[in-house]
Amino acid sequence: MRIGLVGLGKMGFNMRDRLRSRGHEVVGYDPRPEVSDVETLAGLVDTLPSPRIVWLMVPAGEVTRVTVRELSELLQPGDLVIDGGNSRFSDDAPHAEVLAERGIGFLDCGVSGGIWGRDNGYGLMVGGSERDVERAMPVFDALRPEGERADGFVHAGPVGAGHYAKMVHNGIEYGLMQAYAEGYELLEAQDLIADVPGVLRAWTTGTVVRSWLLELLVKALDEDPDLAEISGYTEDSGEGRWTVQEAIEQSVPAPVISAALFARFASRQPDSPTMKAVSALRAQFGGHATKTSGTEGNSAPPSGS
Amino acid sequence: MRIGLVGLGKMGFNMRDRLRSRGHEVVGYDPRPEVSDVETLAGLVDTLPSPRIVWLMVPAGEVTRVTVRELSELLQPGDLVIDGGNSRFSDDAPHAEVLAERGIGFLDCGVSGGIWGRDNGYGLMVGGSERDVERAMPVFDALRPEGERADGFVHAGPVGAGHYAKMVHNGIEYGLMQAYAEGYELLEAQDLIADVPGVLRAWTTGTVVRSWLLELLVKALDEDPDLAEISGYTEDSGEGRWTVQEAIEQSVPAPVISAALFARFASRQPDSPTMKAVSALRAQFGGHATKTSGTEGNSAPPSGS
Amino acid sequence: MRIGLVGLGKMGFNMRDRLRSRGHEVVGYDPRPEVSDVETLAGLVDTLPSPRIVWLMVPAGEVTRVTVRELSELLQPGDLVIDGGNSRFSDDAPHAEVLAERGIGFLDCGVSGGIWGRDNGYGLMVGGSERDVERAMPVFDALRPEGERADGFVHAGPVGAGHYAKMVHNGIEYGLMQAYAEGYELLEAQDLIADVPGVLRAWTTGTVVRSWLLELLVKALDEDPDLAEISGYTEDSGEGRWTVQEAIEQSVPAPVISAALFARFASRQPDSPTMKAVSALRAQFGGHATKTSGTEGNSAPPSGS
Amino acid sequence: MRIGLVGLGKMGFNMRDRLRSRGHEVVGYDPRPEVSDVETLAGLVDTLPSPRIVWLMVPAGEVTRVTVRELSELLQPGDLVIDGGNSRFSDDAPHAEVLAERGIGFLDCGVSGGIWGRDNGYGLMVGGSERDVERAMPVFDALRPEGERADGFVHAGPVGAGHYAKMVHNGIEYGLMQAYAEGYELLEAQDLIADVPGVLRAWTTGTVVRSWLLELLVKALDEDPDLAEISGYTEDSGEGRWTVQEAIEQSVPAPVISAALFARFASRQPDSPTMKAVSALRAQFGGHATKTSGTEGNSAPPSGS
Repeated sequence: MRIGLVGLGKMGFNMRDRLRSRGHEVVGYDPRPEVSDVETLAGLVDTLPSPRIVWLMVPAGEVTRVTVRELSELLQPGDLVIDGGNSRFSDDAPHAEVLAERGIGFLDCGVSGGIWGRDNGYGLMVGGSERDVERAMPVFDALRPEGERADGFVHAGPVGAGHYAKMVHNGIEYGLMQAYAEGYELLEAQDLIADVPGVLRAWTTGTVVRSWLLELLVKALDEDPDLAEISGYTEDSGEGRWTVQEAIEQSVPAPVISAALFARFASRQPDSPTMKAVSALRAQFGGHATKTSGTEGNSAPPSGS
Repeated sequence: MRIGLVGLGKMGFNMRDRLRSRGHEVVGYDPRPEVSDVETLAGLVDTLPSPRIVWLMVPAGEVTRVTVRELSELLQPGDLVIDGGNSRFSDDAPHAEVLAERGIGFLDCGVSGGIWGRDNGYGLMVGGSERDVERAMPVFDALRPEGERADGFVHAGPVGAGHYAKMVHNGIEYGLMQAYAEGYELLEAQDLIADVPGVLRAWTTGTVVRSWLLELLVKALDEDPDLAEISGYTEDSGEGRWTVQEAIEQSVPAPVISAALFARFASRQPDSPTMKAVSALRAQFGGHATKTSGTEGNSAPPSGS
Repeated sequence: MRIGLVGLGKMGFNMRDRLRSRGHEVVGYDPRPEVSDVETLAGLVDTLPSPRIVWLMVPAGEVTRVTVRELSELLQPGDLVIDGGNSRFSDDAPHAEVLAERGIGFLDCGVSGGIWGRDNGYGLMVGGSERDVERAMPVFDALRPEGERADGFVHAGPVGAGHYAKMVHNGIEYGLMQAYAEGYELLEAQDLIADVPGVLRAWTTGTVVRSWLLELLVKALDEDPDLAEISGYTEDSGEGRWTVQEAIEQSVPAPVISAALFARFASRQPDSPTMKAVSALRAQFGGHATKTSGTEGNSAPPSGS
Repeated sequence: MRIGLVGLGKMGFNMRDRLRSRGHEVVGYDPRPEVSDVETLAGLVDTLPSPRIVWLMVPAGEVTRVTVRELSELLQPGDLVIDGGNSRFSDDAPHAEVLAERGIGFLDCGVSGGIWGRDNGYGLMVGGSERDVERAMPVFDALRPEGERADGFVHAGPVGAGHYAKMVHNGIEYGLMQAYAEGYELLEAQDLIADVPGVLRAWTTGTVVRSWLLELLVKALDEDPDLAEISGYTEDSGEGRWTVQEAIEQSVPAPVISAALFARFASRQPDSPTMKAVSALRAQFGGHATKTSGTEGNSAPPSGS
């Protein structure tokens, strides 16, 4: 199959490789000429046979919105756009509508697997019509891991379902990472444990907590046993926030995913305004010393808060 | 009434003042001669009329344990010891037992009010026998706020009940402070709010959130409108931990009190091992840059975690 | 002053009383004829002297939106609308704009105090221009508690600031209530505590946790000492959700407020899908019995999860 | 090797099978004659060649304590006891001491893998001396999964380190399960998702969240697609509690693991006292209807809490 791929960043670049290695012809477009196969988006459209398939792998939000609009003008009825980026699921219906006005189909596809996907295959969650999914199946089959299709691919529902599933996937991911990380800190905190990396490695087979993320943590500790080169400052890229906001919308309690999200926010604050206020309150009622004005001695009699 | 008071720190010192101003004779003992009325604990015991009442206001744990043991040897059958410090409630029964072997009574009394208690009176929660509580009532009446006795004093149950109630009081206090403080940060974060201290002050009458803690927060912001002189590094003094540990013991969900406790722990970590591990994981699967090795550009294409 | 008041529900009805008792003439409009002073919104507008002040006390969202739009057509340049309902702060700018197109002013006013406000006065947080606030000040002064204006009223910032402050106020309220309630459950859970209502009452003076909410809890227990007539099923009315969603928008960690919100969601689930999934997982790996298929005996040997 | 195995419950029974299939002679003892190879603990000791190895697989706490004490009287200097049950790590040093007084060695071994361990092998975390670990290595090698020893076995540190590592393992497990389960509920809550089990299955290869627990969740949904036969009532078996209590001891923030633990507590409460108190407070200040006395209509005007 010959398809277009818009966006050749970390993910798009790798996906082009994987698609080509599985026998597809891929014409990639990216604003950076050094990685792009064509000079313009219009040029990309011109090189594709009709009906065309164009896969988007560009940043969520404004860039995706603009690209969809441009494609709605460049493509023809019967063509198909697949948004494989990390769009918020609520963006999908508007994008589908813009394209549908010109008779162009739309699928949203959540893609998981990170930089490892090129070799291992990507987990794919797709939203859209049965017919559009059918058409794009050769592409999905090339991208997903080998083996049973259902083990790495799902047609989750109508437009929006793919990105919704991906959003929840990432929300879970936040919780999983935080759970392992809290465990890591507990191992580090206890003098009894002589070999923290060894404990984590021993968990990678046989145990209940074995997983790919655990293997990655073992790998990270292999490279840097005390994580000395890593800062605790932790970014988030949107899906965790959307997951919690959606949980609130749906009245679903999500204490674990939200705790993981808030821990990231907190990691980026050099001095928390919240904790300054708590500290100020303690000073007010208890005469508790605050950090700047001294330290609270353990020998002090109880202050009877 | 003439009573002994052991421990003249921030709290004990003020309590001696309040008791004296209410007409009691108080003999205070403290290892620091400059504040002590007598030279030794034995000297304190000697100055008291029989049956004696000795009020302890010393640090919880080892110091209280040792003092109780010493008093068990110095006092006589019929005397009464009141532990007004912040002892863990599970320490009370052992202390009562040590004293009961010598015929000495024991009450545990949780005391709240901080440095303001000298003038406002202290909230008191007492555990022990009806008879012992009755005997010490003149002391309790002098310490508690004026007005209805039941509004500032409670005989909560048998030995241990006073400190249990105080422990829960402090656990609640953690939650309240954190709730106000999160709200404070939300006000600070929003550019729309032109007058954060003014908003907090306006909440002090008429609103649902009015409280003494809120008044203290207003006072703190009066003194330092941006809390610029205050660090977010926040100590904890034990009762919050005990409350959550007790919640676990009793299978009681305590998400708010535990969140408040953990926020204090986190405030004291310059770089969180947990978040280093999360950051390391992100770097592993997504090729996400970590803080030390660069910054994650917003223009980067999605990494499809 | 003669003003219009739209919406005579629990809050609006009481506010009309308070305004009248403070010497204002209030014309109230409500779709329910039995409480309304006029037959139509247009009728209300007709009875007011120019420049008019119309206070809205109607449900947030669609009803407020429609009412603002109607008023934009009925009122005249120089008139002023005050939204005293629980609108989301992000609705305020659009409402102000609709009115500004006709030269009509707008203020948003967060109102706290519940059914007690009629007698105690309401805490007021206002957003809008200095000039509009000035004009409406006699109304605000009548509604707020007596005493210093700054203790129950704040001009928090431009349009939106009033409802933002109210939203945060309610977010804090969620946290405070949950903190007291967790403490209540801990007192109930411990056999040592012989007098739970007594403990709570004793906290109402002198202690660090004293507050109006605590007094209400004491009152509730006075009426129903075991809360036997009360279900744990707990509604939420929007502001708590908005607070957490805004915290996420602003990257502010809000573990306590979100925990309080999620506890309400959970209280409304007869059987949690999340916990069914956890239970199913336990059954899968450990052969742990699940509740429907039997009970896990304590005498069972460890299952070594 | 010929070893003794005390406790033939779900786990011990399976471990005997695995050890035998790997060429070890296992003499099992259990109070239930129908599964036991010998009649008494003393009988078991008699059948073993000196120096003996006895593996305990009995319930943590009292039963383990009593069994260790009995073995300390039955065994001889040079023998070795391995506690493979789910003992709290702080029990290990006392057990080691009791045995050391008679010259008997002690290892603590955390065992993970559930009922699947018989075929897959068990993840093992061991605490004790190098020499004792060396002696028992043939047993560990038979129990652990095949492949590299370090991938399923660790000598984590001195006595106590094995159970500490297992405790943290289980704490993590709580967090992981809750994260997946919250995601499951979010998928269920959203009408867009037409195939919830399909989404979870598609995550099992290629994605970041792939794990053994996820495979078990897919399996559970295979058997019961709506989890209709499963109650949300979820037990906990101690290690989760110990993990959070230890986090508190060590001042380690553990918001995710504690949220997972509290969710289990909450799942077992038919009506939460905490939420009754919150509900009572809402009724007090807002005149909000509570569930038993009616329902809060959406058409009600705002109550201005």
